Amino acid sequence: MFHKIKYVVIPKKSKIEYRACNQFDMTSSTLFTKILQGEIPCDEVYSDEFCLAFRDINPQAPTHILIIPRKPIESLCKVEQEDKALLGHLLLVTQKVANQEGLTQWRTVINTGAEAGQTIFHLHLHVIGGRHQSWPPG
Amino acid sequence: MFHKIKYVVIPKKSKIEYRACNQFDMTSSTLFTKILQGEIPCDEVYSDEFCLAFRDINPQAPTHILIIPRKPIESLCKVEQEDKALLGHLLLVTQKVANQEGLTQWRTVINTGAEAGQTIFHLHLHVIGGRHQSWPPG
Repeated sequence: MFHKIKYVVIPKKSKIEYRACNQFDMTSSTLFTKILQGEIPCDEVYSDEFCLAFRDINPQAPTHILIIPRKPIESLCKVEQEDKALLGHLLLVTQKVANQEGLTQWRTVINTGAEAGQTIFHLHLHVIGGRHQSWPPG
Repeated sequence: MFHKIKYVVIPKKSKIEYRACNQFDMTSSTLFTKILQGEIPCDEVYSDEFCLAFRDINPQAPTHILIIPRKPIESLCKVEQEDKALLGHLLLVTQKVANQEGLTQWRTVINTGAEAGQTIFHLHLHVIGGRHQSWPPG
């Protein structure tokens, strides 16, 4: 039966893009897991025992930083009561990294699910600043 | 000296719009304070001892809900370590209200400062969903 492995179907991009969070395979290793494990480099701006912050490789403003928890949580769709302190910490870190960048004004964005723009299924907070930001937010 | 009160200067809108968070007057009563105090009605979707959630009066998507803490925090620029649990709770509530709306995919947005789109200087989280959301987020 091994020959069938050659015909594994690669999901089309559209299927990946439109998956909802409840379709996530928790065994998947995301790009962010690899960054946390040091397998892929990042432009780090802040790190502590709970999270890592680094510059987005495709910045949408003069400052565009991602903050990710070290705990592999897929998205806000999967957080639980026990994650409350961690989530609060992540929002406190938005202030910390914004201040490091000399910003007192910034937009924090968290995409949950592909329809909302989530492309990597490891929870991440976008800290975007350094320019005027329009409304609606996407 | 009382007659001088008649000549109180009302700040121009432009000055309000472009103020950074460090210029905030903490004695100001915002629209959200009035909603929390029941002086102004809202289309409530969730309430607990720490926060209130209601529909945005100017929705940008089929679902557009605001979550505000009962504690009068101006913005993420002014949060402190002691607010960690509250902030975590607010993110947990994004999931709760999204689920109430039948959503598993949504965008959470927090504007800090007028340049980032903050118009009411009482911390609030936007929960936006029910349609595809583009990038960049404003």
